[in-house]
Amino acid sequence: MSQPTAARGARTRLSPDQRRTQLLDLGVSLLATRSLDELTIDLLAEEAGISRGLLYHYFGTKHDFHEALVRRAIDDLVQQTAPPAGEDSLGRLLASVAVYVDYVVANYEGYASIVKAAQGGNETLRRLYDGARAALTDRIFTADAQGEVVPDTPAARLMVRGWAALAEELVLTWAREPAGVSREKLIRVITGALPELVDLTR
Amino acid sequence: MSQPTAARGARTRLSPDQRRTQLLDLGVSLLATRSLDELTIDLLAEEAGISRGLLYHYFGTKHDFHEALVRRAIDDLVQQTAPPAGEDSLGRLLASVAVYVDYVVANYEGYASIVKAAQGGNETLRRLYDGARAALTDRIFTADAQGEVVPDTPAARLMVRGWAALAEELVLTWAREPAGVSREKLIRVITGALPELVDLTR
Repeated sequence: MSQPTAARGARTRLSPDQRRTQLLDLGVSLLATRSLDELTIDLLAEEAGISRGLLYHYFGTKHDFHEALVRRAIDDLVQQTAPPAGEDSLGRLLASVAVYVDYVVANYEGYASIVKAAQGGNETLRRLYDGARAALTDRIFTADAQGEVVPDTPAARLMVRGWAALAEELVLTWAREPAGVSREKLIRVITGALPELVDLTR
Repeated sequence: MSQPTAARGARTRLSPDQRRTQLLDLGVSLLATRSLDELTIDLLAEEAGISRGLLYHYFGTKHDFHEALVRRAIDDLVQQTAPPAGEDSLGRLLASVAVYVDYVVANYEGYASIVKAAQGGNETLRRLYDGARAALTDRIFTADAQGEVVPDTPAARLMVRGWAALAEELVLTWAREPAGVSREKLIRVITGALPELVDLTR
């Protein structure tokens, strides 16, 4: 249930930017178990205990609201899956993939709906999604500057694109139907697939 | 340019079913270089040299027309990529993948737009697309009944789903930007990736 009094109290103490951030935090947490279509301005207003009018004040149209929400969800994903320092290249990739798998499982409904909206006709969401994928995959080359796992060649970049599609499909399918594959095995399979794919181009 | 006289002459000799088939043939050939959105009832009517009214008679609504067209394009893809007889399992997979690559290149605009429409919100197209993917991937297990390339296990079926996403992304990306990868190498990479992925689950 929402807590109108507490939320109204908080509102008076926060700057508009802080309030917007707080509302996006709430929106992203609601998105974990809801699709983008299910997360309406009405629902967020109710959960935040503020009026729809005030939400429109912070986010403009419903479209702007969804865009801000997707941008925020994607930023979170990119940030959370940053390769950790102090491992070898394959270890860093393994750690990133593990966080990605856990992120998709924890945010399944929202993540699946963002992927679907981006792959369909929504151009703004597609741009955000493509940007996130580029950030996630470019990072592989930055994190692996010596090319221990993947050399930075045009062919390897093509393979990384295919690998990202493979990883996304595997995790989204596995989250619904694990097919006897453990989380650890899934992470090892996805991570191991990248150098194998690059090897095949040689 | 269209040839109204010839088309009208043909129309009188054909049954409604034959005429519908002929119009779908024409639609599918136009779809090679056009997206689904660009292939309108108006365009098909002009190219076939018949009235819009008559086209609506054959296909109902614009939605029904697109559905019939996608069904037909997908049937063509499934049929053309049928594994040839008289090869070993890997040879049959290689031959199927080669036809798939050539099909996507030859029908790039239409194919890319069908994938996009199906991945987005269009439920009918999504069902047709999922059906085609299931037919294409289930066939791997039928064509390889001894499990020479892929044993029929739940984990292998999960990998085949991921592999299909990999193959689609690689071919659609490569068709726009080959990255120095030859057609032959692309076909070998996609084919070789499947047993590698299945091996990783062991």
